[in-house]
Amino acid sequence: MKVIITGGAGFLGQRLATALLRENVLPFRELILADIQRPNAPVDDPRVRCLALDLTQPGAASQLIDKHCSVLFHLAAIVSSHAESDFDLGMQVNFDATRQLLEAARHHAPAMKFIFTSSLAVFGGQLPPMVSDDCAVLPQSSYGTQKALCELLINDYSRKGFVDGRVLRLPTISVRPGKPNKAASSFASGIIREPLHGESSICPVSPDLALWLSSPGTVIDNFIHAAQLSAAQFGTSRTVNLPGISVTVQQMLHALGAVAGEQARARVSFVPDATINRIVASWPGHFDVRRALALGFSVDEDFQQIISAFMRDDMLQAGS
Amino acid sequence: MKVIITGGAGFLGQRLATALLRENVLPFRELILADIQRPNAPVDDPRVRCLALDLTQPGAASQLIDKHCSVLFHLAAIVSSHAESDFDLGMQVNFDATRQLLEAARHHAPAMKFIFTSSLAVFGGQLPPMVSDDCAVLPQSSYGTQKALCELLINDYSRKGFVDGRVLRLPTISVRPGKPNKAASSFASGIIREPLHGESSICPVSPDLALWLSSPGTVIDNFIHAAQLSAAQFGTSRTVNLPGISVTVQQMLHALGAVAGEQARARVSFVPDATINRIVASWPGHFDVRRALALGFSVDEDFQQIISAFMRDDMLQAGS
Repeated sequence: MKVIITGGAGFLGQRLATALLRENVLPFRELILADIQRPNAPVDDPRVRCLALDLTQPGAASQLIDKHCSVLFHLAAIVSSHAESDFDLGMQVNFDATRQLLEAARHHAPAMKFIFTSSLAVFGGQLPPMVSDDCAVLPQSSYGTQKALCELLINDYSRKGFVDGRVLRLPTISVRPGKPNKAASSFASGIIREPLHGESSICPVSPDLALWLSSPGTVIDNFIHAAQLSAAQFGTSRTVNLPGISVTVQQMLHALGAVAGEQARARVSFVPDATINRIVASWPGHFDVRRALALGFSVDEDFQQIISAFMRDDMLQAGS
Repeated sequence: MKVIITGGAGFLGQRLATALLRENVLPFRELILADIQRPNAPVDDPRVRCLALDLTQPGAASQLIDKHCSVLFHLAAIVSSHAESDFDLGMQVNFDATRQLLEAARHHAPAMKFIFTSSLAVFGGQLPPMVSDDCAVLPQSSYGTQKALCELLINDYSRKGFVDGRVLRLPTISVRPGKPNKAASSFASGIIREPLHGESSICPVSPDLALWLSSPGTVIDNFIHAAQLSAAQFGTSRTVNLPGISVTVQQMLHALGAVAGEQARARVSFVPDATINRIVASWPGHFDVRRALALGFSVDEDFQQIISAFMRDDMLQAGS
């Protein structure tokens, strides 16, 4: 049995691989990490195989998926601001490549669990104060549109028995280690991470904006949990809004001050960015996730705990 | 200025063309009817051009759309039961061809009004008694999925200014003239049309099933109305649930009896078909269409009137 992670060079891909290799909850003989550039193996383990693979190329998906594949974690994506500025690249990577993976699964591994990372960015427009699973998607970004397209396809492929799909709508992830990226939500990690490293950080949105957040650790737990559920547990829809916590930017900075002192908090300044604000403010800040919790998905306790986990897990490793 | 109708050989395409040529509410010098087989001109008019065009072929969309196109009515589609049995053909015609038309519009005619016929088949699963515009789609057929995919793309293309899209979610249309087709809802016309022609008809669903119906005439009026609205009137979403009337199969047959006598009604027998029932029963039978009505879309008065209009408009023409 094989498990595959696309976007395997990314932060979540590497962390998921580490968890799968360490925790041994999913049985596999081979763990394939694929990315556009060859990923590093996060752990020295004979089961890991790292592949450079451009999923937008014809035949790439069939190269990856064969009858021995039991689970695919499809994390590869062009992030939100990047997909907004380069529409065609976003369509190719975020939609067409996913469709090719679904087709490969249909023809070579229809029983494979296809775990797809969608996003709260599928929501937008006039939203109720509490977004539930039966709330219409109305994406205000091409990234959100492309994720919503994939959700529909995965549900239909699952309904027809072409694949066993599971769609996880991720909250904004904070705190990510590493460098800022082209996600519109990059600041949601930057305003915590940079000050903790003694650097200044700019917040492009209002302090009052409510974000829907999950720590990386909780998201990884939820990826693995999604692979352990039976198809029947999902009922009619394979799409789940993952649990998160609703926190305003101000509350995030307050937590930063509480955990790391006022001098850390003072390193954040506010410089509004209309483009980022337009995208991020269109996302919901609060969800009704009773279904996700009933399915056994996890949630963080509070944002101070998230910051502490980041300091413990991510800051001691070579100053990342 | 040019107006284009895809699916121009179909019943709705022909009727829309006739209305556009007669009513003269949209200005155009040329009306192009395109279909996989060359349509007939419904009216002898020098402005009509009829084209045989397979929209799934590379370059077909660019052949159709140029900078002179002001409105496209994109009606061409593989119908529901057919798209369910031939998934790949459904994806090609219902989704890929629409995407190619959107790309052609983006590059050659971004101001073009792109009127797309979606369907109540995008809805499914656990539905509220009254479906509104902010209700999540959860298609239980590949046809519904493909329509929902197009809705998302058209909204994103419109948001980005690549095209001026308008998505109309059509009720089930009854009474269609002509022959039964591969739509799962074909019976919704058959159980009225065939008895009126003195023929027997089989109803594959329960008499209690509520359908959401519109007459062909009202749908054509609504197509033309959609092309006359300004983009701003749609607000954040270009997708509208068109008005309809909620009628059970039993009520439809009661209306048939009232208009055409009990002997007509007695020509309908019930033979349940699980496949058709699964698809059709997943569709909502009642909508909150306040937004559509506020936008000026039309609605039929009652089903007796719909039957009378069919007898007046469609039965006198060469016994069709």
